[in-house]
Amino acid sequence: MKNILKAWLKKNPLTPDPNDYTATVVSSGSVGVEQIIDEIVSDGTELKRETILNIVTRFNNKAADLALSGYNVNTGLVYMRPIIKGAFYGKTWDPAVNSVYVSITQGIELREAVAETTVEILGIQSDPIEILSVTDQTTGKTDGTLTKGRNAELKGSYLKIAGDNEACGISFTNTATQEVTKLAATDMVLNEPSRLLIFVPATLVAGEYELTVTTQYSGSTRLLTQPRSASFGSPIVIA
Amino acid sequence: MKNILKAWLKKNPLTPDPNDYTATVVSSGSVGVEQIIDEIVSDGTELKRETILNIVTRFNNKAADLALSGYNVNTGLVYMRPIIKGAFYGKTWDPAVNSVYVSITQGIELREAVAETTVEILGIQSDPIEILSVTDQTTGKTDGTLTKGRNAELKGSYLKIAGDNEACGISFTNTATQEVTKLAATDMVLNEPSRLLIFVPATLVAGEYELTVTTQYSGSTRLLTQPRSASFGSPIVIA
Repeated sequence: MKNILKAWLKKNPLTPDPNDYTATVVSSGSVGVEQIIDEIVSDGTELKRETILNIVTRFNNKAADLALSGYNVNTGLVYMRPIIKGAFYGKTWDPAVNSVYVSITQGIELREAVAETTVEILGIQSDPIEILSVTDQTTGKTDGTLTKGRNAELKGSYLKIAGDNEACGISFTNTATQEVTKLAATDMVLNEPSRLLIFVPATLVAGEYELTVTTQYSGSTRLLTQPRSASFGSPIVIA
Repeated sequence: MKNILKAWLKKNPLTPDPNDYTATVVSSGSVGVEQIIDEIVSDGTELKRETILNIVTRFNNKAADLALSGYNVNTGLVYMRPIIKGAFYGKTWDPAVNSVYVSITQGIELREAVAETTVEILGIQSDPIEILSVTDQTTGKTDGTLTKGRNAELKGSYLKIAGDNEACGISFTNTATQEVTKLAATDMVLNEPSRLLIFVPATLVAGEYELTVTTQYSGSTRLLTQPRSASFGSPIVIA
């Protein structure tokens, strides 16, 4: 068992059953292509960093184009299949409801890694900090896409930003470059325990981001001595 | 628009509305790591085939291990996040209901390929051949895992194997090696239009397969002049 996942148990908010818990993985953070290649380089290789990046990029582009040309693509890591979403009431393509999507499931290398994983249950988290939804206030979308320079709403629990620790606040981490953009205090339009309204920085470049809330808020007037964080489960996509 | 997806419209079997159609992508077949690398090599590269395969394999293994160590992993092609499935009634891990799973969504390179894709609707398919479910008769699972040397049930429509064309029959295509294993006639235990019961070949090696049904059956006593095929939408996994 070479991989370890740590998890907290939380009451399942969707059922009234007091014994119904779900497990939430404790995130170790986010990594992108650059960090994965760093690990390969530090393990030792005769190839240059740029060569590895070039191959991975070409492989990814080929795999993506094959999937979008109707192939079921097995990359070893994942299995991809193109599907078309939405109903066709008018028998013709309607961009408002129809879209192309790639359905992705675990490939054999992920299943093997799952088989070599041990889960450590840390205990029961009674006041879980959690981002349950992120809504683009401009488009109404909840799929993780946000419009820069416009407002977004975060719903969840124990999200209110409070405390003097300098880690406290809301940040966008670019998952490819790991660059962190932290929101100015004036960009937090509403700051409530279960609801944050934020102004999405207009400076964010197109790409994928991890959205993280860090706070010392505890649910009472007493602050936590150490801040704690929650990240949204899906990538935030800035077009 | 460099990618083209072809699709047939079919009546949505889940609603009584006669105007409710869904679109099904016409599959171009399946490709694995070897074929993707073939394309990179044929586009031109100074690197050896084995070098490319070695890098892709190392990259996949690193990405898988990072995801199973609690990281949100962005490979460019996909975004992966580990989750723990199942309820924890006893507050402890129960292998019967709990499992580790990697949730995977489209990365930026797939979304870019989607944006460069045109969908061609070929028309309305009135007698759609389709595999809707595959059930392992030994474990009862419907997630695509099958036990070799045991029976599996395929449900769908127009699946009955009929016709003299030598392409007709049921085949398992290894998605990594593209090796095809065709079922012997004696391994088709039941052969009905909406239900096939098959004996999964004991000779299949562990891996992922595409399951394909090819037949000239038309729904009437008249056979189709050319056989047609349907593949199951998820990979078949042989342990």
